[in-house]
Amino acid sequence: MLRVVLPKGSLEQATLQLFEDADLSVSRASDFDYRATIDDPRIVDVRILRPQEIPRYVADGLFDVGVTGRDWIEETGADVVTLSELHYSKATARPIRVVVAVEEASPAKSVADLPSGVRVHTEYPELTRRFFETHGVDAEVSLSYGATEAKVPEIADAVVEITETGRALHAAGLKILDTILVSYTELIANPVAHGDAEKRRAMEQIQTLLAGSLEARGRVLVKLNVDGANLDRVIALLPALKSPTVSKLFGNDAYAVETVVAKSEINILIPALKEHGATDVLELPISKIVH
Amino acid sequence: MLRVVLPKGSLEQATLQLFEDADLSVSRASDFDYRATIDDPRIVDVRILRPQEIPRYVADGLFDVGVTGRDWIEETGADVVTLSELHYSKATARPIRVVVAVEEASPAKSVADLPSGVRVHTEYPELTRRFFETHGVDAEVSLSYGATEAKVPEIADAVVEITETGRALHAAGLKILDTILVSYTELIANPVAHGDAEKRRAMEQIQTLLAGSLEARGRVLVKLNVDGANLDRVIALLPALKSPTVSKLFGNDAYAVETVVAKSEINILIPALKEHGATDVLELPISKIVH
Amino acid sequence: MLRVVLPKGSLEQATLQLFEDADLSVSRASDFDYRATIDDPRIVDVRILRPQEIPRYVADGLFDVGVTGRDWIEETGADVVTLSELHYSKATARPIRVVVAVEEASPAKSVADLPSGVRVHTEYPELTRRFFETHGVDAEVSLSYGATEAKVPEIADAVVEITETGRALHAAGLKILDTILVSYTELIANPVAHGDAEKRRAMEQIQTLLAGSLEARGRVLVKLNVDGANLDRVIALLPALKSPTVSKLFGNDAYAVETVVAKSEINILIPALKEHGATDVLELPISKIVH
Amino acid sequence: MLRVVLPKGSLEQATLQLFEDADLSVSRASDFDYRATIDDPRIVDVRILRPQEIPRYVADGLFDVGVTGRDWIEETGADVVTLSELHYSKATARPIRVVVAVEEASPAKSVADLPSGVRVHTEYPELTRRFFETHGVDAEVSLSYGATEAKVPEIADAVVEITETGRALHAAGLKILDTILVSYTELIANPVAHGDAEKRRAMEQIQTLLAGSLEARGRVLVKLNVDGANLDRVIALLPALKSPTVSKLFGNDAYAVETVVAKSEINILIPALKEHGATDVLELPISKIVH
Amino acid sequence: MLRVVLPKGSLEQATLQLFEDADLSVSRASDFDYRATIDDPRIVDVRILRPQEIPRYVADGLFDVGVTGRDWIEETGADVVTLSELHYSKATARPIRVVVAVEEASPAKSVADLPSGVRVHTEYPELTRRFFETHGVDAEVSLSYGATEAKVPEIADAVVEITETGRALHAAGLKILDTILVSYTELIANPVAHGDAEKRRAMEQIQTLLAGSLEARGRVLVKLNVDGANLDRVIALLPALKSPTVSKLFGNDAYAVETVVAKSEINILIPALKEHGATDVLELPISKIVH
Amino acid sequence: MLRVVLPKGSLEQATLQLFEDADLSVSRASDFDYRATIDDPRIVDVRILRPQEIPRYVADGLFDVGVTGRDWIEETGADVVTLSELHYSKATARPIRVVVAVEEASPAKSVADLPSGVRVHTEYPELTRRFFETHGVDAEVSLSYGATEAKVPEIADAVVEITETGRALHAAGLKILDTILVSYTELIANPVAHGDAEKRRAMEQIQTLLAGSLEARGRVLVKLNVDGANLDRVIALLPALKSPTVSKLFGNDAYAVETVVAKSEINILIPALKEHGATDVLELPISKIVH
Repeated sequence: MLRVVLPKGSLEQATLQLFEDADLSVSRASDFDYRATIDDPRIVDVRILRPQEIPRYVADGLFDVGVTGRDWIEETGADVVTLSELHYSKATARPIRVVVAVEEASPAKSVADLPSGVRVHTEYPELTRRFFETHGVDAEVSLSYGATEAKVPEIADAVVEITETGRALHAAGLKILDTILVSYTELIANPVAHGDAEKRRAMEQIQTLLAGSLEARGRVLVKLNVDGANLDRVIALLPALKSPTVSKLFGNDAYAVETVVAKSEINILIPALKEHGATDVLELPISKIVH
Repeated sequence: MLRVVLPKGSLEQATLQLFEDADLSVSRASDFDYRATIDDPRIVDVRILRPQEIPRYVADGLFDVGVTGRDWIEETGADVVTLSELHYSKATARPIRVVVAVEEASPAKSVADLPSGVRVHTEYPELTRRFFETHGVDAEVSLSYGATEAKVPEIADAVVEITETGRALHAAGLKILDTILVSYTELIANPVAHGDAEKRRAMEQIQTLLAGSLEARGRVLVKLNVDGANLDRVIALLPALKSPTVSKLFGNDAYAVETVVAKSEINILIPALKEHGATDVLELPISKIVH
Repeated sequence: MLRVVLPKGSLEQATLQLFEDADLSVSRASDFDYRATIDDPRIVDVRILRPQEIPRYVADGLFDVGVTGRDWIEETGADVVTLSELHYSKATARPIRVVVAVEEASPAKSVADLPSGVRVHTEYPELTRRFFETHGVDAEVSLSYGATEAKVPEIADAVVEITETGRALHAAGLKILDTILVSYTELIANPVAHGDAEKRRAMEQIQTLLAGSLEARGRVLVKLNVDGANLDRVIALLPALKSPTVSKLFGNDAYAVETVVAKSEINILIPALKEHGATDVLELPISKIVH
Repeated sequence: MLRVVLPKGSLEQATLQLFEDADLSVSRASDFDYRATIDDPRIVDVRILRPQEIPRYVADGLFDVGVTGRDWIEETGADVVTLSELHYSKATARPIRVVVAVEEASPAKSVADLPSGVRVHTEYPELTRRFFETHGVDAEVSLSYGATEAKVPEIADAVVEITETGRALHAAGLKILDTILVSYTELIANPVAHGDAEKRRAMEQIQTLLAGSLEARGRVLVKLNVDGANLDRVIALLPALKSPTVSKLFGNDAYAVETVVAKSEINILIPALKEHGATDVLELPISKIVH
Repeated sequence: MLRVVLPKGSLEQATLQLFEDADLSVSRASDFDYRATIDDPRIVDVRILRPQEIPRYVADGLFDVGVTGRDWIEETGADVVTLSELHYSKATARPIRVVVAVEEASPAKSVADLPSGVRVHTEYPELTRRFFETHGVDAEVSLSYGATEAKVPEIADAVVEITETGRALHAAGLKILDTILVSYTELIANPVAHGDAEKRRAMEQIQTLLAGSLEARGRVLVKLNVDGANLDRVIALLPALKSPTVSKLFGNDAYAVETVVAKSEINILIPALKEHGATDVLELPISKIVH
Repeated sequence: MLRVVLPKGSLEQATLQLFEDADLSVSRASDFDYRATIDDPRIVDVRILRPQEIPRYVADGLFDVGVTGRDWIEETGADVVTLSELHYSKATARPIRVVVAVEEASPAKSVADLPSGVRVHTEYPELTRRFFETHGVDAEVSLSYGATEAKVPEIADAVVEITETGRALHAAGLKILDTILVSYTELIANPVAHGDAEKRRAMEQIQTLLAGSLEARGRVLVKLNVDGANLDRVIALLPALKSPTVSKLFGNDAYAVETVVAKSEINILIPALKEHGATDVLELPISKIVH
C-alpha cells in the first residue's frame, strides 16, 4: 500500500543491494527500467527516478516513501519527514559533504573572504544562495551541469560541490573553504502518509528491515566456550553493545557464550579472549540484526 | 563406485555450482573438458555431456546416475528412475515449460484447432508427435537445430519450444497454445544400479547433500532472545516448518530461540517478532539443511 | 608499532584477501600503490614490495614482520624468524615446489646424473648452486629473468623452477628430476624485534588472526538436534577436532549439538548423522576459528 | 590562438574521434580530464565541458570556437555564429530530434490538443516554453534531471525529449506529437572572434579539416583500367560527385581512371563497371577529402 | 528481389563481416535477431538461421540465395546450385575437414579396418552412413548433439567430426583415419531462381562483391617509381597476377607503376624491387578487387 | 636461415604488431608460447625471451638477430651489431630514458652531489656502477626486482629507473638528477653472422621491411589535382621528403599530383593546398614506405 521511489544513478546500485539484503528485492525487466516491483504486501509500486527530484515528488504525495540524499532535501526545501538516516553511499558507509572550494592559490580562508560578485558554479544553486546570503556575500550563482571543479579559475571563481574524501578537488587544484552540509542517504516520507497510522506502521517495519541489514554489515557473531572459573573475566571483555547470550553446556562446568561484535573490534578482541581463557572461538557472518 | 554424468551447456554452470555447494566439487583440467572428477569415495567417474543424450546413456547403463531435464527424459522415452527433482534451472528455481506456439494473429485457441498438415518445427520431435497424435492433429514435424521461434510463419506454422517466462516467444510475435510439459531438472538413475542396495544407498546420500544445499538457498537461520513472559507468543509466530530450538539462558528468566525461516517470509516475520517482545534478533546465512 | 611488508605480484591478491578476512584490511590509494595502511593499533606502517627482497629487508630490520615464500628465504639465506607457515598460495592452499627439470628425452634420472658443466638457468641461483654442490655436480648457473622452461634444450640443459602441479613443465616438454624445496608462504619476523616482549606479543596476536581466518576457510559449523536416546551415537560420529558444544533443549528430552567440521568430511558425515538419528542438521559458514 | 571547447558526455567519444581523424588529435592526461591540448599552431587551449553550457561560454567569449548540439544553442538562445553542421552524433551520422511525446492512449494529435495546465517535464525548459507559447498552450513546464520518459502519466502529462529513432519513447509507451527541432552537432564561433580576419581564417581551416574527415567516412576511392573503346561508357557510369581523374597508360591504348564514390553506391556501381568493360577495379579506403 | 539466408552460430560473425566489407551491410535490431535487412535493391529479405537447415530451405525455394558449408549441403543432399566457394571460415581462410577419428591406441589404419557393428557418433549421420557403406563397413551410427570427441572409447568407438587443424582431436586422444570431405563455405542458390535470368544476374553481382572483398583481404596495392632504364627489370619482378598499370611521369624520364600483390609475397618482393632500382615504394591497403 | 629472438613482456605486443605490419607475421600456438615461427624463407627459428637476456644470447651466437632495448645492450655490455634503431616502444614512438632519481626534498642537483655510500637500487646494476664511477661517487648498488621507486627514502637513497614521461617518478615524490641513457628499441645482430654476406643481405632485407612499416605509421599519401597554371605553386608547398609523382591528366590542361606527407603536417598543409588552387585533395592510409 506504500508507493516507493528509489534513486537512479550513483546511489542506485548500493540502494538496490541494501533492499535485497533486507529481503525486499527490487525486480525490474531490465537494468535500465524505471518501473519496478518489490514482492511485499506493504509496497504497491516502486519507481526509480533522479535523486534531485525525489524530495519534491514525496512532498507532493506522488510517493509515500523515498530514498535520497540530505543534500537534495535541503536544495529543494521539500516538506518531508525523515524516517532515518541510512549510512551508506555509493561505495562506503561515509557521508558526502557539500563544500565551497576555490583555487589553492586564493588568499581566502573562508566564504566571508570572497569578494562581492564572486562567480559560483554549482549543482545546488538554492543551497548555495542561502549559504552565501547567511555569510553576507553577494554571489553570482550559476547552475552547473557537471565538470564543475574544472571551471576554476577561468569560468568560475568558486564552486559548491559534493566530495567524500576531498581527493578529486585537491587533484583539480582546489582547496575547501567551508562545509555547507554533511549529507547522508535518508529514508523519507510524505507528511500526510506518515500521519496515517497504518502507513506509518508499514514505514517503520520497512525501516526496521533496512536498518537491520545495514547494521549487520559491520558486525559478526562471536561464539565461544569458557569454563565456569573464567566466565566472568571473559564476559567482562565483551563489548557493551548488547548483553551476551550465555547457556550452560551439558555435562561439564562450562558455558557457551555468544555475542555480536563490531568487525572493527575483532582484531583486538579475539586475541584478548584467548588470553583470558576462552576456547573454540568462532566468528560467523550475520545478515541482519534487529534489537 | 557410482559413474555420474552431468549436463553440458545451459544447465552446466548451475549444476556445477550446486555440486560445489553440496561439498561435491567437480574438478576439471579446463572449463571445456568433458571428463571430471569429484573427490568423494562414492563417485568413481564424472562426465559432462549434452543433456539430450544423458537419459539414453543412463538407461543403457553407461552411467549409474545423471542430471538432466524432464523434457529430455520424455523426448527419449528412456527407462530411468527419478531420484528427485532438483528445483533449479539456468538462472532461477523455476521450471521450464515445453509449449506449442503459433503466430499471435492465428485464430487457433488450442492445438486441436490447428489444421492437418500443419508444419511444426521443434527440438523435441518425439514429444511433439505424441502430443499432436493425442490431440488428433496430423502434423508434419521437423527437427529444428535452433532459432526455432524465428521460423514462424514463413518456414513453420507452429513451433514446440521451451520457455521460462514466455517473454522470448512474445517478443518473436508468437502466442502459446498449449503446454506439453512442465520440466524440472532431475537426478536420475539406471534401474539396475538403483536395484543394487549399496549403490542405492550411495545415490540417496548424494541426493541428501544436493537437496540440503538447494533447500538452504531459500532459507536463513533466525536467532532471538525472549523473556519467559513472551516465550509462547513469540514461538507462536514462528513458521511451522520445523519446531524451534529453545534453550534457557544462564542467570535470568530468558530463553534463546533459533529456527529456520524462508527468506520470502523474513520481511513480515522480523517486524512481528520485534513487536511481540523478541530482542536481539539475528539472521544468519545457511549452507545446507538436512531434516 | 610493527612495520609490515607484504608481497607484490603473484601472491599479492591472495595475501590482501587473507588480511581482509582476518579483519586487518589493507588500504591503498590505488591498486598500484606500494604504501598502504592497516587500521590496527599494533601496525604503524605497511609496504608492498617484491617477495624476493622481503627476507633481506626483514633481516636488516627495515621491517619487523613480513610475508613471503620459503623459497626466497632460502635463496637469500636471510636471518629471519618464522612465526608460522600460512597455507595459501596464488590460488590454492597447496605449497609450490622448487624443482630441477630437464628435457623429457634426457637419460638422467636424478641431479647426480647430470654432467659437469651443465648449463642451469634459474631465478634461484644461490639455492641452485648449493643444491648442485651438495650433489657433487659442477654446474654453470645463470640467473634467468623468466620464461626459463622455454630455454631447454638450446639455451639451457636444465632449469630450476617453481611448480605447483608440474603441468607447465610437462607442457614445455620437461621432466622433473629432483625437488629442491617445498615452499609455503610464511609469516616472518626480524630476530631483534621478535626478542622484544611487547612486539612479540603483537606479532603473535596478528598471527592468531591470520591463522584463524585460514583455518575457517576449510571448515563449517554443523548444528543439529538429537533426542537423549541417540545423543551418544551421534556424538561418536563427530570428528575429534574439538569436543562438540552440547546444550539441553528446553521442554523436552533433546539436545542441541554444534561442532566444527572440515568441509572435506561433510559429504560423508551429514548422511551418517541423519542415519543415526540427528534431525534438523544445519551447515553454516564460518569466518574465523581460534582454538 | 583559438580557444576551443568540446562536449563532455554522450558526444565526447565521437567528437574526439573526429578530431583525431582530422589530424587534430586531442591529448589529455586521463580520460576524465577536462583540460586538453591539440598540437596545432592555431589552437592554444582546449577544454571539455558539458554541451549544455558550451553555447553560453562561446557567446560570452570564454572560448572562440566550440562543438555542441543545435538543441543547446536554441535552449540557451546564445548569440553564436555557426561555422558548419557536423553530421555525426553519438553513434551515427543522423541528427537527433527534440520532440513532444504523450501517452500512446492519449487522444491528442498535436500539441494544440493538449489542455491548459498540462504538466510537461523536459531537460529543455526554455525551448519547451517557447514552443507551447507559439502553439497557444498554457503549460506547466518542469526541469527534468533525466529518466523523463518514465514520468508519464503519473508525474508528467507530456515530455519534451531528444530521440534518434523514436524506439526508446515507443518502448516507454509514448507517442510523438510534434517535432520541435531537428538538431545536428555544430561547430560554432564567438561573433567577435569570427569578425577578426586572422581568427576567422584559422576557424575555416579547422572546419575544412573536420569536414574533410567526415566526408571521407562515407566514401571510397575507386580505381580501374579501361581500354579506349570503353572509356566513355565507363566514365558515364561514374557518379557526378567530381570529375574522374583519367591518365593514359603507357604502352597501350588504355586508361587509368580513378574517382571517389559513396560507399552506399558501390554495391550497384562495381558490377555495372565490370559489365561495361572496366578491368582491375580496386576500392581503397580514404582518410580525408577536401574539394 | 532476392531472399537471402545467412548462417547463425560459428560462421555468423565472419559472414556478417564479409557482407559489410562487400558494402552489403546486414542490419538487425539486436545481435540475437533472426530477421535482418540489407539496404540493396537486389535483396528483399534476410534471415539468419542454423547452417544445418539452410541447404534444405534454399532447395525448397523458401530462399533464393544462402550461405552455408559444403558439409551441410552434402549431409542434407539438398538440390542447390553453388555460385561460388567463399574462402573463409570461423577465423581463417582455410576449409574445415569432416574426418573419421578413433582412439590413438587403435590398430585401425583406415575406415576399412573398423569392425562390423562399430559405434560411430556424429553430427552428420547421413554423410557417415554413406561413407561407411562405400567402404563396406556395417556401422551403428548415432546422432550426436555435441561433445562428440569426448565419447571415445566408452560411449563411441569412432566419431565423425569437423576439424580445422586436428588439434582438438589430438588433445582428446584421437587420431584421424580418413577425411570424408573438405568443406568450404559456399554461396548457394535455388535452382529455379537461378534459372530466372534477372535473378541470376543479381546473384552474380552479389557474388562479384563478396569475391572482390575476400580477394582484397590477402592483397595490397604496391606503387613505385622507376626511371626508364630500369622499367623493364622492375616490371619483370612483379607477379603475373595482373598486368601492372604504368604511367609516364611528367617532366622526366620516369614511370609510375602500380600493381596488386599478395601480402604473402611482399616480404620477398619489396627488397627485390629496391635492389633493382625501384624508388618510393608504397604499400596501400585495398578494400575490394574485381577483375 | 636466420634465427631470431624477440622480447617477451612490455615490448612484446608492439614488436609482434610491427612484424605483422611488415608482412612478417609471428605465429604461436598460444599467446604464452615462447617458440614461434615466421613464414619467410630467410627465417628458420623464432623465440620470444626476456629482453634482459637477448643481448647476451645474440652475442653468444645462439641467435643471429634480435630485438631488444639499448638499455639492456649497455647493461650487459654484449658484443652485438646494431642494424637499426626501431622507433617504437610499449605504446609510443618515443624512447625511454634511464635516469637517476632521488627524493624531491633532496638538496642534490646532480649525481656528483650524492654522498659516498649512497644506497642505489636499480634493475641495471652494471650501468649504474659504471655511471657512478665515472662521476666519482662511491655508491652501494643493489639489484632491485621491481617497485624500485617506492623504496625511497626508507630502503634506498636513490634509484636508477626507466621513464618515458617522468610522470610515475614524479607521482612517487622523486625528482630526476641525471639521464644515464636514452634508449630506443634496436634490431641487433651477432657479429659473426653479420660478417657472412648472405646472412647480412637477409638481415638488411628484414630491416627494410620493418623500417618501411614504422615509417608508414606517421605518414599518409596525399593525392590532388591541379591545373597547369597552379602546378608550380602547389608543388612548392609540398614537403621536400621526396619529389612528388606528377602525371598529366587526359583531355585537359591539368595534372594529378601525389606525394607522401607526415601526418603531423597535414593539418597545416591541406588548407594551404586548397588556398593555392589544388582540388580534389584526398588523403589515403599507407602500410609501408621504402625509399
